[in-house]
Amino acid sequence: MNGLLTDLYELTMAAGYFAAGKHEETATFELTIRRLPKNRDFVVAAGLHRAVDYLLNLSFTEDEIKYLQGLPSLHNAEPGFWDYLAGFRFTGDIFAVPEGTVLYQGQPVMNVRAPLIEGQIAETYLLAAIGYETLVASKAARIVHAAAGRDIIEFGTRRAHTPEAGVLGARAGYIGGCAGTSNTLAGYLYGIPVLGTAAHSWVMSFASEAEAFERLQRLLGDRTVHLIDTYDTLEGARTAARLGRPLRGVRIDSGDLDQLSREVRVILDQAGLTEARIMVSGDLEESKIELLVKAGAPIDAFGVGTELTTSADAPNIGAVYKVVAIGNTGNVRYPVKSSPEKHTIPGAKQLFRLPDHDVLTLATECISGAEALLQPVILGGNLVQPLPNANQIRERATKALNPWPVANRPMEHSPKLTALIEQVRGETPK
Amino acid sequence: MNGLLTDLYELTMAAGYFAAGKHEETATFELTIRRLPKNRDFVVAAGLHRAVDYLLNLSFTEDEIKYLQGLPSLHNAEPGFWDYLAGFRFTGDIFAVPEGTVLYQGQPVMNVRAPLIEGQIAETYLLAAIGYETLVASKAARIVHAAAGRDIIEFGTRRAHTPEAGVLGARAGYIGGCAGTSNTLAGYLYGIPVLGTAAHSWVMSFASEAEAFERLQRLLGDRTVHLIDTYDTLEGARTAARLGRPLRGVRIDSGDLDQLSREVRVILDQAGLTEARIMVSGDLEESKIELLVKAGAPIDAFGVGTELTTSADAPNIGAVYKVVAIGNTGNVRYPVKSSPEKHTIPGAKQLFRLPDHDVLTLATECISGAEALLQPVILGGNLVQPLPNANQIRERATKALNPWPVANRPMEHSPKLTALIEQVRGETPK
Repeated sequence: MNGLLTDLYELTMAAGYFAAGKHEETATFELTIRRLPKNRDFVVAAGLHRAVDYLLNLSFTEDEIKYLQGLPSLHNAEPGFWDYLAGFRFTGDIFAVPEGTVLYQGQPVMNVRAPLIEGQIAETYLLAAIGYETLVASKAARIVHAAAGRDIIEFGTRRAHTPEAGVLGARAGYIGGCAGTSNTLAGYLYGIPVLGTAAHSWVMSFASEAEAFERLQRLLGDRTVHLIDTYDTLEGARTAARLGRPLRGVRIDSGDLDQLSREVRVILDQAGLTEARIMVSGDLEESKIELLVKAGAPIDAFGVGTELTTSADAPNIGAVYKVVAIGNTGNVRYPVKSSPEKHTIPGAKQLFRLPDHDVLTLATECISGAEALLQPVILGGNLVQPLPNANQIRERATKALNPWPVANRPMEHSPKLTALIEQVRGETPK
Repeated sequence: MNGLLTDLYELTMAAGYFAAGKHEETATFELTIRRLPKNRDFVVAAGLHRAVDYLLNLSFTEDEIKYLQGLPSLHNAEPGFWDYLAGFRFTGDIFAVPEGTVLYQGQPVMNVRAPLIEGQIAETYLLAAIGYETLVASKAARIVHAAAGRDIIEFGTRRAHTPEAGVLGARAGYIGGCAGTSNTLAGYLYGIPVLGTAAHSWVMSFASEAEAFERLQRLLGDRTVHLIDTYDTLEGARTAARLGRPLRGVRIDSGDLDQLSREVRVILDQAGLTEARIMVSGDLEESKIELLVKAGAPIDAFGVGTELTTSADAPNIGAVYKVVAIGNTGNVRYPVKSSPEKHTIPGAKQLFRLPDHDVLTLATECISGAEALLQPVILGGNLVQPLPNANQIRERATKALNPWPVANRPMEHSPKLTALIEQVRGETPK
């Protein structure tokens, strides 16, 4: 299962490694944030749960192997390779930063220490699974920060890159600090608060706005949030005010949100509905939210969709997955890749976090009093301990984001890592 | 199954429609390209296959219903609503443009004619499923066009918004004209050509580049494409030239692709390898490809990943899903929504394509000699006929894209549609 959800070259290389007798050689691959997404000073790591699910279940069905056997690129694969794939399981070790950890440019998210083939096949899935949730958690953190204490409700599933991505986007948004999501499946799967009341189609399906509002109150009671901009926002606010309680609040989804929220606030207050909340939505992101907050618009919550779920200003992350050490104990080699713009730091590494800076070291080093961020998650193919749930991860992220992380946090290399870098730089590939 | 993969408000509205006795009322929802993505003059419709899979399997499990019953928003739902959900199946009709159809701003992709609740619940999934593949097929068309006859190989799964989105991105890219994908599962599921040979980790895992190249030739024979930029691109080209045939070509993944491709071409030609192809990759998109093509760089194929699979310059599409008619035959109402920037054209509609323009009509109209683009796909909850496969869809798109579609293609409204718009404009919602 899931064995084919990878780039074909991972499988042709696997066949080649097998032919070269390299399948018993151990390698360490490192998943690193090589370039930060545009407009980001750091990222919030997320997506590890899916990497783990994938690795624990990674295998090839008979039909999948038959398909591969029919591909011209694999016609010369050794017969033993097909038996190897049929029995394939991930047997390696995963060290990863916990979800909800803040990471900077050049920092590792995960080490995969496994037989070369196993680490190679996993590349494509791990990059996409961790890349997407990290992207959205990082965007969410910015949006939540801009809202300065007001709630952010994520409702971007309809704009996600597939509905299923919307479920994971909802999870990542929650980790990044959103108060909840509209995605019901995300609530079911991950225990995230789910929110939402009614759309314009609800209002339009009744003969009048008043009837639609009344019906909603009957259903939702004090959770009622009326969408008031279907016809005329201020008229809608007056209708909501006339109907009064039970009422949680109103939502404005179009127009000049600053101006309208002020006028709606007055209408609600004059009706004695001072506790009724005003929520706004419509192509919002951190810069628009910051403007509304700074202008003092009386807004209690923002609904954010498209911009959050697709991380629209930076829809991809420069994460890479590179082999940093090959060979079994006692005979480890360090690959050298000299393309100037695509420099890889050799060796299996650890990342230590100290109060004012981070230190990148060899995996075998220890810095007393510092937090070792790469923690064992899978050892010998088995999960070390249950993963934290979305609420625990969100707490970790909330702590890491308060106070707001500085840009360009310093990261040192340990003397031993520096020595290894120097040593490898001296080697010339043939 | 899949019943919870929707926004909670679709389900609260469903409970409200049920309470209001509206679950037996028919509604037509229209999925429309309200705004084109940035930098796009048109889109290539895709994703219908997933919409169909979803609708044919849409249901709620017992556990899912229990979860919903525990949500405060649904505490007041009528007991009959839970029975209704337990027996829920999609029973409506779908009319949709075939995948691979070129569409312009304001044109409908799909009509959903179904009991109000069924159409409402499906909104979120349909928008995301059709939105994402349409986005990628449209981006692919631009990239393929820029390559002016050279091959585009899609290999963006690692940057997709989840690995699973990568599979659908591969399919959409192929529909948009890519020659193939690196995504093995997309090949298995959709019969798309899969391509790919080896990565830098392959080269680095051997003691020398020459050994890595030799091993690859032994495995891939005349499908061998050497990745030559691990250490030094021109040295890599010389090594490949020295090893000679069997060889399909070489790939350059970094550096000045124009300059390097010329120098590599000379090296290969001087070794008599004139038929060996040069493929380039590295953050490519349509504008960079166009520059390389115009400069006359001797490049035979482009590998495109991130920019294609995430449609990075325009990572979302302004598709909307709006109710356009409510009520059973003889008692149809047309919803009016007067937010100025979010205008909806009333009525169930058909879109006719003529040589130089399109005509939007009522669904019941006919224009002889013109192609009616919205075709029946599901009637009464049943698939009308098997959907075309990815190759057939790609052929349709290829025809539609040749000659390259003009921007701002005119679209008229039929007199009957115009009359309906006027009539509805005259009505004032209460």
